[in-house]
Amino acid sequence: MRILVLGGDGYLGWPAAMYLSARGHDVAVADNFIKRRWELELDAQPLVPVRTLEERVRAWEEVTKRHISCAVGDLCDYEFVRTALGRFRPEAIVHFGEQPSAPFSMIDQRRSVLTQLNNITGTLNVLWAMHEVAPAAHLVKLGSMGEYGTPNIDIEEGFIEIEYHGRKGVFPFPKQPLSFYHLSKVHDSHNIMFACEVWKLRSTDLHQGIVYGVATDETELDSRLATSFHYDGIFGTSLNRFCVQAVAGVPLTLYGTGGQRRPFPNIRDTLRCVELAILHPPRAGEYRVFNQFTETFSIFELAETVRSMAIKLGYPVAVEHLPNPRLEEEKHHYSARHQKLLDLGLQPRLLSDVLLDSMLAAIRNHAHRIRRESILPRVQWDGASGVAGALIDTMPPSQRAATATAFPSRGLMQGPQLVSGL
Amino acid sequence: MRILVLGGDGYLGWPAAMYLSARGHDVAVADNFIKRRWELELDAQPLVPVRTLEERVRAWEEVTKRHISCAVGDLCDYEFVRTALGRFRPEAIVHFGEQPSAPFSMIDQRRSVLTQLNNITGTLNVLWAMHEVAPAAHLVKLGSMGEYGTPNIDIEEGFIEIEYHGRKGVFPFPKQPLSFYHLSKVHDSHNIMFACEVWKLRSTDLHQGIVYGVATDETELDSRLATSFHYDGIFGTSLNRFCVQAVAGVPLTLYGTGGQRRPFPNIRDTLRCVELAILHPPRAGEYRVFNQFTETFSIFELAETVRSMAIKLGYPVAVEHLPNPRLEEEKHHYSARHQKLLDLGLQPRLLSDVLLDSMLAAIRNHAHRIRRESILPRVQWDGASGVAGALIDTMPPSQRAATATAFPSRGLMQGPQLVSGL
Repeated sequence: MRILVLGGDGYLGWPAAMYLSARGHDVAVADNFIKRRWELELDAQPLVPVRTLEERVRAWEEVTKRHISCAVGDLCDYEFVRTALGRFRPEAIVHFGEQPSAPFSMIDQRRSVLTQLNNITGTLNVLWAMHEVAPAAHLVKLGSMGEYGTPNIDIEEGFIEIEYHGRKGVFPFPKQPLSFYHLSKVHDSHNIMFACEVWKLRSTDLHQGIVYGVATDETELDSRLATSFHYDGIFGTSLNRFCVQAVAGVPLTLYGTGGQRRPFPNIRDTLRCVELAILHPPRAGEYRVFNQFTETFSIFELAETVRSMAIKLGYPVAVEHLPNPRLEEEKHHYSARHQKLLDLGLQPRLLSDVLLDSMLAAIRNHAHRIRRESILPRVQWDGASGVAGALIDTMPPSQRAATATAFPSRGLMQGPQLVSGL
Repeated sequence: MRILVLGGDGYLGWPAAMYLSARGHDVAVADNFIKRRWELELDAQPLVPVRTLEERVRAWEEVTKRHISCAVGDLCDYEFVRTALGRFRPEAIVHFGEQPSAPFSMIDQRRSVLTQLNNITGTLNVLWAMHEVAPAAHLVKLGSMGEYGTPNIDIEEGFIEIEYHGRKGVFPFPKQPLSFYHLSKVHDSHNIMFACEVWKLRSTDLHQGIVYGVATDETELDSRLATSFHYDGIFGTSLNRFCVQAVAGVPLTLYGTGGQRRPFPNIRDTLRCVELAILHPPRAGEYRVFNQFTETFSIFELAETVRSMAIKLGYPVAVEHLPNPRLEEEKHHYSARHQKLLDLGLQPRLLSDVLLDSMLAAIRNHAHRIRRESILPRVQWDGASGVAGALIDTMPPSQRAATATAFPSRGLMQGPQLVSGL
């Protein structure tokens, strides 16, 4: 199948491209490398050295004799998107090409607006380009379980039947996300659902849990094929971060009590889920949601699991509770259905001692690159610490100017803005 | 009270500014006049000649001895928004400053993306600026009844209690809007609700029905105070359009059967609703929704009402059914609660013969300005007629180039975009 992977330079995009290429699909990737720039801007480098996309594509070809095509461009540039879809003529489009971090979206006004504009525009452009040049393609969109928040009723897969005052209807499950990033995913979901209805497009919205893992079968073929694994307070996620903290010998840091319950899939399962969605496309006009995770843990349970494994391996680490920088409940109901991918054949790899062992071993190989100072949270949801105070203050003036021009306000009004008479 | 009206040059923004000024409030308006540019771009001029904002502010001062301050700038320009809020220090912010047309948002990729970016960015900027410089202000945001769509259950005011599998929760009412414009309002609603929660802001989201009416007590004081009344296929709405068609002696055009049931408020009631929201602010951290309409009609009923009144006044007009250019159900359940504004004291002015009579009379005074060719729908929701074919084709090349630069793609990637190897 001809498959275009958007965001093909990222933590999941690159492994997905290799995974699909290895299974005989004709794969192209698109990326604009803006995530690498954000990493530089925020001093948040991945644990493992990551080659350039071109170097990885060449290494992939050398190792497997399989070709992955590259398109370098911005999903916010409609001509790029339309041209890419028109030339490659994908049967499936896997869309990882978004700003992926909740803390990033809460830093300040600029990054909050950037997150929503970048993610919404990119996805809208993909939908318009599908409508115009690839109406039969199947959009596999990476959404988030965080779109649902933590409601007091069971979470269904995208839709819920509501009976009210004697009448019934099937509705999109009400979303209550807790960051501007998660909100951007909710906005995408609404836009995609409408586009499927109005233009008879087809899409699977993978509401993904918090992915963990360093390696896949394909990244393990050659060190040059490694993916971008984050453990920092901006792009890192809980389990990955805990494993790095264990290897670094610093306390595993919980936000608040750690009673927050969250859904998790292994990175290998995530790739399989994407494949299952591709192999079983929806009908024209259909928008469907799969909840993409395999098990849930409270963050406290997760930390304890990592801690006991780490102790076995000779890393005596503690668990520490930090004041919660986020707005979230720490004690809540959490029960989310995740049946549809199992029905399609997913065989979950649950978090076992074996998996943790191999993660910790992989991290140990790069232990010298761990920068402890980047692990702790740097962004307060309520802005109480000053809007991105710490972040902005550590940025030299030259870089500040450069990032300011990275996202100019749009030129709807030319010339100086007047604020007269106020 | 110090009240800032965003979008103060528009159909509702300008009358709201005068209404509030007349009642002794200290009023400022902000606008960037982009709507006037869109009117030029789409050849969709208002029925009544509309003076510039500065001319109207001067006329208002001359007639009433009351002062309205002006700020000229773009809500997408954060420095403008922050400065405006910081200098004026509003106690209430009435936010009409958005692209207001569903057909506009369905024309083509550019206008679809523009609608969402313009509306979402503007509102996000207002929220960030409130957080930073005006955290106690009350945001009165103009949302839309169209955010709900036409669900098969009764529509509540913003929130619904759902009981599911023996558990209960209160949720934002699930939204199923049917245009990229209405989607932008849904995205705003989600963003505002979150900002209220995380930053303890306060907001009233007025889910407004389809406003009708030419005049208010204040516009009637002087012809120079008239507001922007549209009857065209892009910015005009059903009742306003039917009245103009009646006066022009052309058939009233229904989309499809006309069985679509919609909520309507009179323009004078709309202003009173805004005032009621302002006078009864929510508590810090509260996000509330008022459904702002006074009665519902099917579009067919509405046309028949206008037709029978027009016949009485000597305008013999027919009702004509056009193929529906939109994606919408023409036969559906529709029952929406609208109690909260009544509880605050709203006394509805229902659509009566008197009201229709005065609307038709006001339109008759400008009958020579009616351009019949602009009344019919020009935008197909499904793009079947070619994407905005008619619109684009009637635009001279010079103007096309000018509008293309009005909304450049953002400069995240500099330099030429590469689409290599596809």
